[in-house]
Amino acid sequence: MTANKIAPLNTADGQALYKKAQKLIPGGTQLLSKRPEMFAPGVWPPYYNKAKGAEVIDLDGNKLIDMSICGVGATVLGYADADVDRAVKTAIDAGSMATLNCYEEVDLADLLVEVHPWADMARFSRSGGEAMAIAVRIARARTDRQVIAFCGYHGWHDWYLSANLADDGTLDGHLLPGLKPRGVPQELKGMMQPFHYNDAKSLKKIATKHHEKLAAIVMEPARNAPAPGFLSAVRQIADETGAVLIFDEITAGFRLATGGIHLTLGIEPDIAVFAKALGNGYPVSAIIGRERVMSTAQDTFISSTAWTERIGPTAAIATIRKHRKEGVPDHLVRIGKRVMSGWAKAAKGAGIEIEVSGIPPLAQFAFKAPSTDNVRTLFTQLMLDRGYLAKNTFYAMYAHTDAHIDGYNAACAETFEIIASALRSNKVEGLLRGPGAHRSFQRLT
Amino acid sequence: MTANKIAPLNTADGQALYKKAQKLIPGGTQLLSKRPEMFAPGVWPPYYNKAKGAEVIDLDGNKLIDMSICGVGATVLGYADADVDRAVKTAIDAGSMATLNCYEEVDLADLLVEVHPWADMARFSRSGGEAMAIAVRIARARTDRQVIAFCGYHGWHDWYLSANLADDGTLDGHLLPGLKPRGVPQELKGMMQPFHYNDAKSLKKIATKHHEKLAAIVMEPARNAPAPGFLSAVRQIADETGAVLIFDEITAGFRLATGGIHLTLGIEPDIAVFAKALGNGYPVSAIIGRERVMSTAQDTFISSTAWTERIGPTAAIATIRKHRKEGVPDHLVRIGKRVMSGWAKAAKGAGIEIEVSGIPPLAQFAFKAPSTDNVRTLFTQLMLDRGYLAKNTFYAMYAHTDAHIDGYNAACAETFEIIASALRSNKVEGLLRGPGAHRSFQRLT
Repeated sequence: MTANKIAPLNTADGQALYKKAQKLIPGGTQLLSKRPEMFAPGVWPPYYNKAKGAEVIDLDGNKLIDMSICGVGATVLGYADADVDRAVKTAIDAGSMATLNCYEEVDLADLLVEVHPWADMARFSRSGGEAMAIAVRIARARTDRQVIAFCGYHGWHDWYLSANLADDGTLDGHLLPGLKPRGVPQELKGMMQPFHYNDAKSLKKIATKHHEKLAAIVMEPARNAPAPGFLSAVRQIADETGAVLIFDEITAGFRLATGGIHLTLGIEPDIAVFAKALGNGYPVSAIIGRERVMSTAQDTFISSTAWTERIGPTAAIATIRKHRKEGVPDHLVRIGKRVMSGWAKAAKGAGIEIEVSGIPPLAQFAFKAPSTDNVRTLFTQLMLDRGYLAKNTFYAMYAHTDAHIDGYNAACAETFEIIASALRSNKVEGLLRGPGAHRSFQRLT
Repeated sequence: MTANKIAPLNTADGQALYKKAQKLIPGGTQLLSKRPEMFAPGVWPPYYNKAKGAEVIDLDGNKLIDMSICGVGATVLGYADADVDRAVKTAIDAGSMATLNCYEEVDLADLLVEVHPWADMARFSRSGGEAMAIAVRIARARTDRQVIAFCGYHGWHDWYLSANLADDGTLDGHLLPGLKPRGVPQELKGMMQPFHYNDAKSLKKIATKHHEKLAAIVMEPARNAPAPGFLSAVRQIADETGAVLIFDEITAGFRLATGGIHLTLGIEPDIAVFAKALGNGYPVSAIIGRERVMSTAQDTFISSTAWTERIGPTAAIATIRKHRKEGVPDHLVRIGKRVMSGWAKAAKGAGIEIEVSGIPPLAQFAFKAPSTDNVRTLFTQLMLDRGYLAKNTFYAMYAHTDAHIDGYNAACAETFEIIASALRSNKVEGLLRGPGAHRSFQRLT
């Protein structure tokens, strides 16, 4: 079977609206990772009409199975989950906002502390980036220090992007390519000290140099497997320096456990931050932590009207309860493993080399080929034509079924054959209907 | 009629849950202005079960008419507005989050630009504070400068709270009492230059001193009436210095106009920021502006997953359309004027002195009496016992009817009589069932 036997996906209405959007919205979207250019420029459907389970209907009426980043990791249960949506609609009928507080925020704090026995208190906000900014504010207030040791990506706020300020303005952005710090005050330069995941020595070096100034260590506990002893070394450095250990669980949380991935790793932070999967796509984020750290939130000013509405905590409670009751992590791991082995098998069958990485619920592969951007764009284009939203990253949802994976794996096998043939005949670029995909920013790993 | 003829409101269940909340949530709530201590400690109902129109049922089952801050200004149409909620539920059924973008964000950008003809582009977020931080980032990126001239309150973020950093740490907070800057990097000190509303000279002084460094002028266009020529002087200073003029419309927007209050004032900013009323209580915020400024958002990194969900723009579109169709500002002004004259009449009748201020949809009064904190607490307590959520601030909603105002004005007349009598006999404190209310932070006006 070859590519031209299957009709190219028509996304004309979506492309037209995206052209309009680029005039009205700088950058076209609210999130870098949702730009169609990140997938297949001019080909990827920019907008959806309807999403249910793992199925998406785009603006042109195409029905597609989402085997890509699945709500950027937010919809861990699946799109329009019936149980979460029912709870939210009940909350809407009861009035989602009032002058008085919603009691659901107390219930959610209670539930998060129950799920994470090391934690005592919680604050809530509505997006991941602002939750990380709150965590950092609390850590700095708690310690009266300002330097942050970090690895990984943690959002758009000044505290984080200042890592990309350079002595020479022309070098701005060199540390985390793609994250432009323009507009971040130069005065914040030097406060962010990067270390590498699984390299305790690089953190130790920062701790030694900035001992008396180190406010926090900020990191994702795991995106791949931690090396033996790495996380306990991090915990020890935090204890020795008095720095607040902040685990960013925004992406990894609710994948391998109901709650933070750190629950599976035997290491307890001082603060953990959740967003994305916490509300199954409804905006809500949480900062949980030990009482001695969290109570400092009262000694600074952290306050916002939008954080008081009822839908966020309602959605989070419903998501956590279903997640726990249904044993969602087991399902995500099983589905993720099937996808990972499907990639490996398809690659082997087609005789092309790929490298598979990540944890099963957040899996990815990389083509080992010349001009990989074009190759992965071709993969996305071929999969779109076969009815799948796909790229070289797959976020598992509870709504993914074995039937989805069967079909997806078969389609992967087919497209990998076409890619292998195109690579052999040097026709990858020729098969593309648009330019190659843009690269996302690079994570500091 | 005296106070003891009416049964005291029983809020025992609410108080018990709030005690629990204070152990689980530092500060007890997500917003300073929603702390029961801000109204009547131990007496004010901390939580609600149901809110519809202008009516709230608290956790103890008390039915109360909200004549206070009404969702902190977010629910401009009223609680659980049928039209907005219908649109939101339809969006939920269509899937509120997906890998693809929601087309509603383009529609909302289009609508906001239509309503504000000077603006060309929009970005969206989910809370007011983060929207202001985005606006400031864009202004700093646009100008490659960092100093901000400001008046008024603009949220919890580092850029703003840094105004409260002092050379002497013990003086931290002196500029805006109640807004503690602990945890905000000292390096940001001096970037925030305060000026006074209706005092163009104080702004001019900053502009002269920091001319080459002035990134933005940040202010609410009006909370009271601007002095003749003040806003055009501000506009001129922005033009002369090249600073970006940012209007914070988070509170004043959608009160006197469908859109920013600046639409009624004849002055156009470079950026305007909306939250609160924009989504009638659903979390959504918007940064709109001129193309030459907003396009700079692409030269820095401003991106968050939660900003891409569908409910925010859906609620905003439904709110704006209803707001415009129903001529909501006229209603808010009429209701607000009736409340303001009700206060004045009640005070005159009781022989006590008050000072009424604000615009009619955002009205307030101050008792001119000794220990005013206790007096306004007594007012709140007496009004609670009469079935009203009330303090010395009133935010009008479209759901407020003349019948509400008739009842409220009568209750005010009654309580003002009791207060007058208590003042004469020096029994204000003796009548309180709890401590006096806390003061909110002071706005720099």
